[in-house]
Amino acid sequence: MPQPSQHPRFSPIGMFDSGVGGLTVMQQIMKHLPHEQIIYFGDTARLPYGEKSGETIARYAIENTIFLMDKNIKLLVVACNTASAHSMSKLRQLFNVPMVDVIEAGVHQAVLTTKNQRIAVLGTKGTIQSAVYENEIRKHLPESVVISVACPLFTPLVEENFAAHPAAKLIVKEYLASLRKAQADTVILGCTHFPLLAPLIQEELPHVILVDPAVSCAAKVASLLSSSQLEANASMGFRNHSFYVSDDPHKFSVLATNFLGGALPSVEKVSAWK
Amino acid sequence: MPQPSQHPRFSPIGMFDSGVGGLTVMQQIMKHLPHEQIIYFGDTARLPYGEKSGETIARYAIENTIFLMDKNIKLLVVACNTASAHSMSKLRQLFNVPMVDVIEAGVHQAVLTTKNQRIAVLGTKGTIQSAVYENEIRKHLPESVVISVACPLFTPLVEENFAAHPAAKLIVKEYLASLRKAQADTVILGCTHFPLLAPLIQEELPHVILVDPAVSCAAKVASLLSSSQLEANASMGFRNHSFYVSDDPHKFSVLATNFLGGALPSVEKVSAWK
Repeated sequence: MPQPSQHPRFSPIGMFDSGVGGLTVMQQIMKHLPHEQIIYFGDTARLPYGEKSGETIARYAIENTIFLMDKNIKLLVVACNTASAHSMSKLRQLFNVPMVDVIEAGVHQAVLTTKNQRIAVLGTKGTIQSAVYENEIRKHLPESVVISVACPLFTPLVEENFAAHPAAKLIVKEYLASLRKAQADTVILGCTHFPLLAPLIQEELPHVILVDPAVSCAAKVASLLSSSQLEANASMGFRNHSFYVSDDPHKFSVLATNFLGGALPSVEKVSAWK
Repeated sequence: MPQPSQHPRFSPIGMFDSGVGGLTVMQQIMKHLPHEQIIYFGDTARLPYGEKSGETIARYAIENTIFLMDKNIKLLVVACNTASAHSMSKLRQLFNVPMVDVIEAGVHQAVLTTKNQRIAVLGTKGTIQSAVYENEIRKHLPESVVISVACPLFTPLVEENFAAHPAAKLIVKEYLASLRKAQADTVILGCTHFPLLAPLIQEELPHVILVDPAVSCAAKVASLLSSSQLEANASMGFRNHSFYVSDDPHKFSVLATNFLGGALPSVEKVSAWK
């Protein structure tokens, strides 16, 4: 933890997700900003967020943010599409900290990518029902056509290591059937688990460009820190990332290794809402 | 709600599950005990329970039971295998009310069914890791062989209406591969969602008898009420069942119709833990 006397650029970046999915975003941030210290909170006692109501998700997001604010973070990354969809305006209203969310980042990248202004969005039910991707895309490209597809089984398939199983292929085919004639040239992977199914999705839709919001999310974090003169640098030395979860730390560690491609330091169990 | 002056046999039966799955148990109770009034709580804001830690599940079970005790119930049904696996001893220690759980009921039925003392159990990861079915079966049949298989994708497949999809068939085949040579003659459907996959499971294991704990759970409720002289009767007239959930009531109503085979009366959103 930073000392009170230190410059805020020593403070950590805080990020939360419902579980391990946000680690795909963390990985991108670590790659782009190797000197930053990150505090990650996975709300594993209440996951998944994808099928729950907007009201409940917003409450969870507020509680998670209070937990991270208490750790003196200099920037908040909402690394969960469903939480981004339902809580950003509330979080921005309540908390005095710069924020980056995966949806804004994904939309930015998709708008730069599309040539024919036909963009598809794959997400959880919660994200799709919120229509937030659609609304955000239309702000930049009012004439665009946005095709949204809820893919609720993608997350459990990834969590259960079925991403390479023939059943996953059938389920991908089923969910994407409506997209085969939609002529979208750009497909947003609107859930942090979905990049792990990218090979199957690309096989089913060979002519589209897949957009992983994690990549532009990391770029946005970098530019925001830089413009606020809050970025860490090499002279600060190596500082450990911290991982907190609201349920079993061991299970998180095991799953996280698949996502981050390496062993985690310790994971601590906490309750964000007590 | 019953008046304080009324005999406790007027009081309702309370039951909880993480979501809609417990409605398969409710349906059996309604069939066997048509005069009973039932209060059902589905903890949909925190579902699923199946992959979470025992400690967290026990806490949720206690909170759910406090909510139901406050409704003056005469008997508690824990209609969720994972909650039964992790919380029964704690609940029995804390609360002064007769209790029936799906695991005890399922074991009872399986022990009566098996001829070769080889019993398989299908469940969530939480239920299987707890080894509670195994331990309970061995109390009755110490020489028996119990083969336990975690099937974590079965629940989301049912919830997403993929129970009849070719992908479900592949996933059933994958999970049950280890059972094909296990020579079990009895298979316990150790999760309230699994009866909806019974046709595929039976197709894969044509020579076994499938045990749905909901059936003997209802019988156990009937005998316990009768022996305690707590059963309702026709003279009490028709009383509405009540449904409470911790997240979106509308989503619960829609899903519940598939399980109960008819429209629900109103569903109320409450928080069991605040």
